[in-house]
Order: sequence, then C-alpha cells, then structure tokens
Amino acid sequence: MRKICVVITARPSYSRIKTALIALKNHPKIKLQVVVASSALLDRYGSAVNYIEKDGFSIDAKVYNILEGENNTVSAKTTGLGIIELSSVFENIKPDIVVTVADRFETMATAIASSYMNIPLAHIQGGEVTGNIDEKVRHAITKLSDYHFVASKDAYDRVRKLGEHERKIFNTGCPSIDLAKEILYENQLNFDIEEVYGGVGSKTDLSKDYIVVMQHPVTNEYNESRKQITETLKAIQEINIQTFWFWPNVDAGSSGTSKGIRSYREKNNLNNVHFFKNLESKDFLKLIYNSKCLIGNSSVGIRESSYLGIPVVNIGSRQNRRARGNNVIDVDYNRENIKKSILFWLSSERPKKSKVYGGGDAGKKIAEILSNIELKFHKTIVY
Amino acid sequence: MRKICVVITARPSYSRIKTALIALKNHPKIKLQVVVASSALLDRYGSAVNYIEKDGFSIDAKVYNILEGENNTVSAKTTGLGIIELSSVFENIKPDIVVTVADRFETMATAIASSYMNIPLAHIQGGEVTGNIDEKVRHAITKLSDYHFVASKDAYDRVRKLGEHERKIFNTGCPSIDLAKEILYENQLNFDIEEVYGGVGSKTDLSKDYIVVMQHPVTNEYNESRKQITETLKAIQEINIQTFWFWPNVDAGSSGTSKGIRSYREKNNLNNVHFFKNLESKDFLKLIYNSKCLIGNSSVGIRESSYLGIPVVNIGSRQNRRARGNNVIDVDYNRENIKKSILFWLSSERPKKSKVYGGGDAGKKIAEILSNIELKFHKTIVY
Amino acid sequence: MRKICVVITARPSYSRIKTALIALKNHPKIKLQVVVASSALLDRYGSAVNYIEKDGFSIDAKVYNILEGENNTVSAKTTGLGIIELSSVFENIKPDIVVTVADRFETMATAIASSYMNIPLAHIQGGEVTGNIDEKVRHAITKLSDYHFVASKDAYDRVRKLGEHERKIFNTGCPSIDLAKEILYENQLNFDIEEVYGGVGSKTDLSKDYIVVMQHPVTNEYNESRKQITETLKAIQEINIQTFWFWPNVDAGSSGTSKGIRSYREKNNLNNVHFFKNLESKDFLKLIYNSKCLIGNSSVGIRESSYLGIPVVNIGSRQNRRARGNNVIDVDYNRENIKKSILFWLSSERPKKSKVYGGGDAGKKIAEILSNIELKFHKTIVY
Amino acid sequence: MRKICVVITARPSYSRIKTALIALKNHPKIKLQVVVASSALLDRYGSAVNYIEKDGFSIDAKVYNILEGENNTVSAKTTGLGIIELSSVFENIKPDIVVTVADRFETMATAIASSYMNIPLAHIQGGEVTGNIDEKVRHAITKLSDYHFVASKDAYDRVRKLGEHERKIFNTGCPSIDLAKEILYENQLNFDIEEVYGGVGSKTDLSKDYIVVMQHPVTNEYNESRKQITETLKAIQEINIQTFWFWPNVDAGSSGTSKGIRSYREKNNLNNVHFFKNLESKDFLKLIYNSKCLIGNSSVGIRESSYLGIPVVNIGSRQNRRARGNNVIDVDYNRENIKKSILFWLSSERPKKSKVYGGGDAGKKIAEILSNIELKFHKTIVY
Repeated sequence: MRKICVVITARPSYSRIKTALIALKNHPKIKLQVVVASSALLDRYGSAVNYIEKDGFSIDAKVYNILEGENNTVSAKTTGLGIIELSSVFENIKPDIVVTVADRFETMATAIASSYMNIPLAHIQGGEVTGNIDEKVRHAITKLSDYHFVASKDAYDRVRKLGEHERKIFNTGCPSIDLAKEILYENQLNFDIEEVYGGVGSKTDLSKDYIVVMQHPVTNEYNESRKQITETLKAIQEINIQTFWFWPNVDAGSSGTSKGIRSYREKNNLNNVHFFKNLESKDFLKLIYNSKCLIGNSSVGIRESSYLGIPVVNIGSRQNRRARGNNVIDVDYNRENIKKSILFWLSSERPKKSKVYGGGDAGKKIAEILSNIELKFHKTIVY
Repeated sequence: MRKICVVITARPSYSRIKTALIALKNHPKIKLQVVVASSALLDRYGSAVNYIEKDGFSIDAKVYNILEGENNTVSAKTTGLGIIELSSVFENIKPDIVVTVADRFETMATAIASSYMNIPLAHIQGGEVTGNIDEKVRHAITKLSDYHFVASKDAYDRVRKLGEHERKIFNTGCPSIDLAKEILYENQLNFDIEEVYGGVGSKTDLSKDYIVVMQHPVTNEYNESRKQITETLKAIQEINIQTFWFWPNVDAGSSGTSKGIRSYREKNNLNNVHFFKNLESKDFLKLIYNSKCLIGNSSVGIRESSYLGIPVVNIGSRQNRRARGNNVIDVDYNRENIKKSILFWLSSERPKKSKVYGGGDAGKKIAEILSNIELKFHKTIVY
Repeated sequence: MRKICVVITARPSYSRIKTALIALKNHPKIKLQVVVASSALLDRYGSAVNYIEKDGFSIDAKVYNILEGENNTVSAKTTGLGIIELSSVFENIKPDIVVTVADRFETMATAIASSYMNIPLAHIQGGEVTGNIDEKVRHAITKLSDYHFVASKDAYDRVRKLGEHERKIFNTGCPSIDLAKEILYENQLNFDIEEVYGGVGSKTDLSKDYIVVMQHPVTNEYNESRKQITETLKAIQEINIQTFWFWPNVDAGSSGTSKGIRSYREKNNLNNVHFFKNLESKDFLKLIYNSKCLIGNSSVGIRESSYLGIPVVNIGSRQNRRARGNNVIDVDYNRENIKKSILFWLSSERPKKSKVYGGGDAGKKIAEILSNIELKFHKTIVY
Repeated sequence: MRKICVVITARPSYSRIKTALIALKNHPKIKLQVVVASSALLDRYGSAVNYIEKDGFSIDAKVYNILEGENNTVSAKTTGLGIIELSSVFENIKPDIVVTVADRFETMATAIASSYMNIPLAHIQGGEVTGNIDEKVRHAITKLSDYHFVASKDAYDRVRKLGEHERKIFNTGCPSIDLAKEILYENQLNFDIEEVYGGVGSKTDLSKDYIVVMQHPVTNEYNESRKQITETLKAIQEINIQTFWFWPNVDAGSSGTSKGIRSYREKNNLNNVHFFKNLESKDFLKLIYNSKCLIGNSSVGIRESSYLGIPVVNIGSRQNRRARGNNVIDVDYNRENIKKSILFWLSSERPKKSKVYGGGDAGKKIAEILSNIELKFHKTIVY
C-alpha cells in the first residue's frame, strides 16, 4: 500500500482537492494520510477541519502554526513554524509521497519539509499566473516538486517551460470542477440558508433574484485592501439587489478588508446585503449557480464558474492571467465600473459553459496516477 | 543610503561573495548590513564568522539555527527555524534589499523571509545545474528572487528560460573569480602552514610536489557518503604523494564522510596525508594554485580552478552540468578511475585558463548594479 | 551605565510596571531597554505597544509570538516561540539584567531565556497566590529569578518561604499603586469617552451613577468561561444601571467569554451597557474611581481599588488568596449573589483606603535598587 | 488503562529512570508512552535511544531539538524548540500524565508543555540541591509539577518547604539504586571491554587495579571547564594507575572539557588512560564497583556509589549539597588535592554501604503510585 499524504492548510484548498481525496481514500492500492494545518484549523477562517471530518476523512495530524499579527512578518514566521512541525509529522507517519495544493504562502512549508526530507512531492495546480506573493510561491513550489497535476493546457505549457520533464506533468483538469459537475444534477438549496449557516440581518429569499460577493485582500497591496473593498461596497449598495456577501480568507491584509466591511456596514444602510462566513462548498456552488452574478476576486469565479456558465465580475489583479472561459468581465477597483459590469450581467443571457479547467474527472485521474507512478525525489532541470 | 543586507550561512558562501561585500562596503551610496547564520557561526565548520570579522566587516546579527542530528529532518527544521529568526532580524534592521548566495539548503530561509516580507531579493549564482537537493533549492530561490546575478552565460540563459525578465538578470561573472585573480599577482604561501592553521600529523613541505583533496557528501546519497570517501582514500593512499586533505562542510551525511576518514586513518598508514579544517580562502587558492592537482567535488575545482588553470579530478555527481573550463576530468566513485586521473595530471601540462566564470570584476559590478537598480518586489512570470 | 531590559507582554502588565519604567528611564545610572512582545503588540488585545510609544519609551525590539487557536496547546507553543525569539533579542542587546512582570503564561519565556543565558533576572510581583496556571507560572518564575520585587508583606513572606534569600527580596509595594496615587489629585474624565475611545451603543453620561465590569476567563476552566460570563451578564441586565463593560484579555478561553457576551447581547436588551475595548490605564482608574462599584475578576479590583477605596464585587477564583483591603466582596459565579453584592455597594458607604499594596512609590524604589544592586545569576536555595 | 508518558532527554536520565520504565511497562493498568528527545537521540552523546530500544521499549515519538553552538543562547533556544515539538507530541498521543526526570535544562520543555496543556505532571528527583543552572531548573520544575517522586528524606523535606502538599510527595528512593542493587548479585564484566565498547589506546586489564574518571562541565563556569579538566588530567597522569576515562555529556561548555582532554592527550603521555564514550549503565556500575575509586563530578558517585560503597573523589561544585553517604571525599579543582584524595582511597578500606537514596525498589513504587493516584493538574501553594 502506497502511503499518500495530503496536507490541507485552508478552506478553499479543501474544496479544491476534495474529489481527489475521495478517490485516494477509495483506491485499493493507496493508504491516504490527511494532515490539517494553518487556517484550516481555525474558527475565524471557517474551520475547514470540521468539514473534512464530516466528510468522513480521518485526520492523521493537526498542525497549529498561524501566528497572530496581520503583517507579512508573521506570514514568514508561520511558514517557518510550519516547516518545523510538518517535518516532525512526516518523520512520524513516513509518507511515500506528499501532496500539496495550490499556492498559499504557508503551503511552502509542506513543499520544503517534504523535499528536504527526500520525500517525493506532488503539486496540484501549479503553472498558473496571478498577481501577488502567490505568484512567487507557486513557481518556487513547482521547482521543489517532483510531480505536477495541472488544471489547464495553459498551465501544462508553463510548467514545461519552467524546465520540468513532460513525463512528470499531468493535465488532469482541476478537481474543483469535479464538484461543480455534481451541481448540474442537483442544483437547488432545499433548506433555509440562515437557519443552517447563521448570519446576521434581514431574511433572504432564494426564489428572488440575487447576486453573490466574495472579495479577498491582495497581499502586495494590503494597505489598499480597505479602500478596495469600499468601492465594491458602494457599487453593491447602489445596485441594491438582494446580495449574499462572504467574509474574506486569512491573508496579511484581511483585517483591512474586514474592517472596511464592518465600518461601512455601521454607517450605511445595507438592508439588502446578507453576510456569511462560510458555506459548504457544494452549497456555495449551488448558491452562485442560481445567482445572477458572482462579484469579487475569488478563483471560483474563474474556475468552477467557467464550467457552470455563471456570469462573473472579476475585480482587480488577483486572478490576472489565469485561463478564462467567456463568463468573466474584468474590472478595476472602481465603483462605477463594478456597477456597470454587474448591470450588464443582470440584463444579459448567461454565458456558455467551458471545459478550460477540465471535464469533471480530475480527482479520479490524480488518484490513479499517484497509485501507479514511479516514485523519485531526484530531478534535474531539462535545459 | 540604500540598506543592502547580505546573509552568509557558510564558509564557502563567504569566499564566494567576499569581493562583492568589499565593494558594497566601500560604495558611497550603500549601507551594508551583514547577517551571519547557520554553519558560518560554528567551530565545527570552520567559523567563517571569525574571518568575516577579521576582514573588517561589522556584523549586524548572528542567527544560530543549525539543529543537531545528521539527517534530512533536521535540515528541514534548521530552515524553518532560520525563517523565524531571519524575519525578526529583517524586521529590526529593515533592509531595502536582501542578498542571498548560491544554493545551500538553509539559504531558502533567507529567500522566504525576505520575499514574504515584501523585501526585494537578489540571488547570487542562480541558473546553474547540479545533482542533489541544491538543484531544487537553487531554482526555487530563482523563482522567489527579484534580481539575479549569475556567474556564466550558461546560467544567464537558464534563468531567462525559467521565466525571469531579462532586465533583472545580470551576468557579472562569479565574485569568487575576483579573489582568484588576486592570486595571480602573489601566489606563494610564505609561512609555515601547520603553524598558522594547526593540523595533526607529519610535517609538510610546500616546495615538494603535492596534491589537495576536498570532498563533500552528496545529500541525496548520504548513506553512501562513507563508502564514497573510502574510494578516494584508497586512491590517495596508493598514489602516496604529499597530500593536503580538507574536512567536509556541514550537510546531512557529513558524519558519514568524516567517520569514513577517521576510521580509515586509524587503520591505515596515511603518512603522506595532512588533514586541515579550513584555510582562509586566499591561502586555499594559493595552496591549490601551486598543487599538482585538486581532487574531490568542491565547486572551487570547477570555478576558480578554471580561471587559474588548475588541474582537477572531479568526483561524482555534485558538480554535474556546471559550466566547465578544460581543466576538469570527471570520474565516478571508483578508486581506480580516481587514481588514473590523478596520475594523468601528475604527468601532463597544466590546462589553459578560462573566463567561463567571468573576468575578476564581479564584486564591483554587483555593488554598482545594487546601488542603482529600481527596487521592486512584485514580479510575474514572463510567459 | 547598567543596561536594564524590561519585557512587556500584555496591556495590563504595562499598566502595572509603568511608573517603574519611568523611573528607570530617568535614572542617571541606567540605560533602559524595552522589549514588547506577545499580545502587547496585537490590535485584538488593545495594542499596548501604542501606549508605550505614546508615553515616550523607545522600543528596542518587538517579538511576535502569539499563535492562533484558542487552546492550551498554542499557549505552550507561544511560550516556546517566545524563548527562541527573546534569546536572540538578548544576544543582540546584551542586557545586564532582565525584568519580567507578574505571571502571565508567556512571561515564562522571558524567565527561561534570561536565566538560561546567565543574565540576572528580576521578577516583579512574585509571591502572590491565585487559582489557575498563573499560580504554577508565578512560583516557577520565582525559582528562576535572582531578585524579587514584591507588592505586599504577604508576598514577601511567601517568597522567603520558597527558599529565596531575604537580601534578594524587596517589598516595594506595587507600581500600579503609584499610578493610582496620581488619580487622587486629578480624578475626573474631562472628555467625551465615546469620542476618544469609540465603542458601540447608546450615549453614556458620567455625571450619572454607573458601574464598571471587567471579567476575564480563568484558564483551568476555559470551557466554563461562557457559562460564567452569562451569570454576570444576567445580573447586570437585571440591575439595569448605566454600565461600562470591558472586553477580556487574551487567554485560552477568551473566545468563550467574548462569544458569551456577543451572543447574549444579540438576544437581550442591554441598552444600559456600553462596551469598550481598552482605556489608557489612568483613564480607566478615573472611571472606576468615580463608579459606584467595579465588578468582575480583574486584579485592579484587589490592588489599585484597595488603595483608592473603590467598592468591588470580585467573582470566582481568579483572585483567590491575594491580599485584600476591605473594599472587596467575594462571590461565586451566581447571578443572584453577584446582583445582591452589587446592590449592597450601591446602597453602602465607600470602604476605607488601604496600603496593603504599598504607598505609591514602588517605581522609584525598584529603579533605585536595580541601579545599585550587585548583579549575580548564581543562587542556591536557602534550606 | 491510564496513559503514562515518560520523556527521556539524555543518557544519564535513562539510566536513572530505567527500572521505573520497566515497572510501568509491566503494570497491568498502565499504557506506557516513551518519548525520546534532545541529546538522547544523538550519536555524539551516546545515543541513549539505541539502548532504550534494545531494552525492549517502543518509542512513541522522537523529538530533535538540540541546536548547535556551544553557548547558553542555544540552550535557551533548544528548550523553546522542545516546547513547540513536545506540545504537538502530547496533542497527538494525549497522555493522562507526563513524567519528567531530574533537572537538565531541556527538561523544562517537558514541564512547560505538559503543565500549560493541563496534563498532570510528575517529577522524578526533585528537591535536591546543586550548584548551577540545574538548581534553578529543578526547583522551577517542582513548582510546575503536580506529583513529586523524590530520592531521599532530605529531598522530601525540601519539596515540602517549597510549598507542595505532602500528599503529593513520595520518597520512593532513586530508581538508579534499583539498578545498582542488581549489580550486587552479578558484579563482573565478563567480556573484553574494548571489543564491545571500542575506544582508542593501549589494552586494559580489569584484573589489575584501576580507577575511573567522569567529569562534566559546570554550566555557570563554562569558560572554566577547560582549566578545570586540566587539573584532573594532571593529577591522573601523576598517579599513573590504569584509568578508564569517560567523555562528558552535552552541556554548554562540554567543548571546553572535550578540547581540554584532546589537547592534553596530544601533548602528554597518557599511556595508562583509556578513553570511552559510553557504557551501558549496568556495565558502568560493574566497572566502578570493582574500581579502586571513582573521580569526577558525576551524580553516580553520590548516588549509586553510596548504596554500593564505592570510594569517590568528588570534584568541584556540581554535586554540592546533595545528600551523601560516607563514601565521598569532596575536593576543589586542584591537582594536588585531587591526587591526595585518590591516594587516600588507594590505601584505605572501602566505605560502608548506605540507604540514603533508597533500598532498590523505587521503580516499582513509582509505577504503583502512578497507576492509582487521583489525577489533578490544579494546585495551590500550601502557605
């Protein structure tokens, strides 16, 4: 039995890897090891750990490594502490291969611990392009990784150009699309969303038109995050349609975003806006599938929404240069442009669906490859 | 005054960066900050810190982060601890730009602390190719770095292929060649080497023919390191010419190498072999310049020795695919092949000198560029 | 000049040591070094660092070491990280003596770093007795410390019984009383408290009767903290007099207390209760000095309030066995008893003032002793 | 089944606790958890871990936390890192009670991790008195501990005076005496000591008279350690009787001691001195039992040797004020005094045996008490 260890450090990473985890768990030749770390353990960021356990995964180790203090120094320290802790975990559970997901700053800890310990490392979702520290982290992790499971042809080409051997790169599509695919068969939220997920404010009505907002801070501009979110808040207030708004994830600067929201909410009438902390990923997909438009800078707007054909207004640089379907309007941090783009989608047909991020079978493909591939931790750049 | 912080983590890194440090220190527009960390602080590895102070540099911070226990787990932990400590250092001394040297595992700590803290990062000696964990580390650091000072045309091309913008890559040659250049004017060791550097064993005589051995363990093969060193020991014993032998640097596996030497020495007659811990870099260069041959896997054999035209027998994979002059014979870990190659050089003409690693002005070029360059910590891959 | 380094890790510790800091700063034979660490740096806990800088102290180093995740495991890790960071700080600034304040869990990091580094350690406020982890921490720090500045005769006796030499124990009284003393000369809050300190809710009127609540979680009972705070909330709601309520400090369990407050506030009418995050310590003393009663478990109720003759209802075990004036009624976590005790004070005369915690000159005494005392880091138990 | 976790951090601690471990392992109501950390894992310090495994204990976790750099700063950092790692270990294996042994600096990590995590803590061998940092550490650990297993009446009285409740203190004697007791029945080394334990130098002959030296550095005087060991070396050289000499344990300053020995050995004729790294504890006891005299500052001279009636010359302050039998002559660091005392024992009768450290059943007593005792982590000083 090959021991495959997946390290999950955040709520969105879990959504992105979930179908691969299921396929790994069910594979007869694989013993799945799950390590939950960083913000995935914390209440403030939606306690992904609870969903992971509820979904039937048993957790091999929990790693608390998030330092308080919302500045970039603690991001570095959090990563350093993560390396110290994860190397002890790996020493104990001795995986044959480690899997790291995407490009959050703290995932570097997984990559360094496993590569330095000569454990083969697989990276999910390398080869993409964005606009902040994630950009540096993602490509650095590609260079530390031995196997690459990319989400699009575009990403495949980029990982090859980075000097990785083509036999080690697999364009499986993105596992998040696998989840999105299931939504197509059962797309209604058949329960009272406030009752299940809490939230403050007036009652929502899913049978009426609504939009959804999810906007995260952008690390390099973290002093800007409060100003940026205010533009969006103004646009949404002026449009004044029923709105589901989700709190940002953990990043240097998240307090700027959160404070911007809190402060604006206190001074302005946002009766039509309903704030939520977190939805299970399927419920979130159902919610946006039935919405008129998704606004913000979440990768869900680029990725799952392309497959599902959901209209998106993508704000700012966070998703710059990621491959897109034709469901996205890109705008800058400007209330008028945000407003105009939302109004366009409110009055237009829904966009066509796209397979740019795969056909909904990424999880199974990844598990199958991981079960069979020859394991090596030694590589040399191809050029 | 631009504050430029150079982090030095090992004895050989100091030799490699020394002329750049001098040029930075003397530059009117630069305030040099020197941080000494890891094995550069430790007696066991030659206390580079003493040479740094003796050369007139004042040290802004010392970072003890080497964990004991010669396995790869502690290499990971050492790096994690380095991040925690260096981020505090950077927060205190607030450099405008950080400089990291080469590709030892612990240099990743410098790269992560500075890039995560949005401090522009310059990397000296990226773009080369070798055969172990350094290979992963080096290219990952390239992806975390904003400016690249490479040592050869070959390295320049590789960093470009890795997606870095050509305006951020500078082929200055290697600063180690600057030091080598000085040797050409004054190449004699005019003192008693045992008296100055200690060492056990019978008296040496520099006026007679001699060879020099410096062989480090190779991380990925650390169980092999004892076996590998034994092949070299046997070859040297059989040739039985006056030999200066240097202890290996710190790496997972160094105890294998060191134990191999100690054990062999106890059981065999090595009268002609003289063991040394460390020489000041200039003295070491003078020593090898006047030797008949340098044996082992040190990068000095590839780099400085090409400029100086010193015959080299390079053993094993450690320097694989680094650009070479015509002064190198490559052999595997085999006593017969090692012996044959040494005998070849003992009976041949010295090889021609080469400028593959620059013309001896790298330090000044680096300082000048660092003093003028526009500082940015935000980048995106070019393709 | 003797270098004396004071490490401050929390808002209340700063209030407690402030007059000693002033006296140290002004002393001609002392160079004061201030290190700010842990929750004293964090916005969530009142950013003591801002008050320290505003009061004119320059900060020699900041140490971020608080891990997120409100459980006791992260308290341990926070302390471990604090040791790592503080030992680097001490190595850089080389104090002749280190001063640590009171008994919060993270102060153990100060005590270990300095005692292990053979730096003489002075402990402020040892020898008292309480009812949770602080109890273990306090006495353990006494055993690591070389000099003891205690706040009462009771504490002096206890430190002696612990085997410390009487020449090393000084009953200076508590520096917090020095601040309290100043209040006696100027006791009015001559500004709009909401305007200066923010806060949500209806307008307060300081000319009318009011009470003040400050209740922290008790570590060993942290699952209980939500239930405990609810008893107090009910008592206050029923009494329905103008109330100033302060959020709890950082401790495992603070989320239980905070959540208890937030949840109760959403479901109940607390019109007469005004929530505040933090007041400058003098303003807080003025506020309670003019109040009808202070409720909760803050040490201010035991200490400063005894000197100032402020009526106090002390809830639960947190201040167990601390020396008391006659201004305190002790009650358990029971809404009826809390209510009865508040009503008693609302209808009684104010209690007499007491000097059980000193006469208001502790800061000067501490500075004078620290400037003269012979420094040694070597001690042996007296029995 | 009660889960009892014993943390072992050094070779001598293992010897001291071994019979308790056996009794715990064999107890029907106890599940023993063994954690091996710090120098107990390192080859340089005798790899206690190998003996632990050879003795049939399975190891639940290994914790690498020793930093390199022989100064007191790294002792502090080692302890900080130990806390971080051990708290993760405890979180994973969830012991009902943790056992820590004696007073080495790094054992503070065990004490802090468990007490901060509200896990009841038992301390073996508190209440004694010595002359360096161990003295502070030992009593601080007493104040963090909930249960105390002391080795002598003297220690029992001291722990009581420290304010611990008498129901929580148990004078079981020292488990090291249990091992010593076994020696009485079978006291010969029936094998070739060089063949089994290696070692350099001329052949030894156990049938002839010999003495044994074991001298560790004393932390507070670590610059002195080289000078101190030289006095002993001179005394031994002058006496010129067959000598078994053991390398010192890990402590700040051990390099001073080790260097002193190495350097002296190079310059002087020590034909009669045989150096050893480590013997299994039983073999070591047999060796000293049959020696004419044990010299140095090891606690074995005070403890086991009193029970066995072995003549001892105890040098310097390291064992100051530990309870003694009448087998010990105390001397300072002076070659003449050391020599004189050795010569006294060489010409005198062996001293009487003593039960000051118990009767040889400590391990069983400890296991029995730990299996039954009511577990609490909350305590208050008794006075």
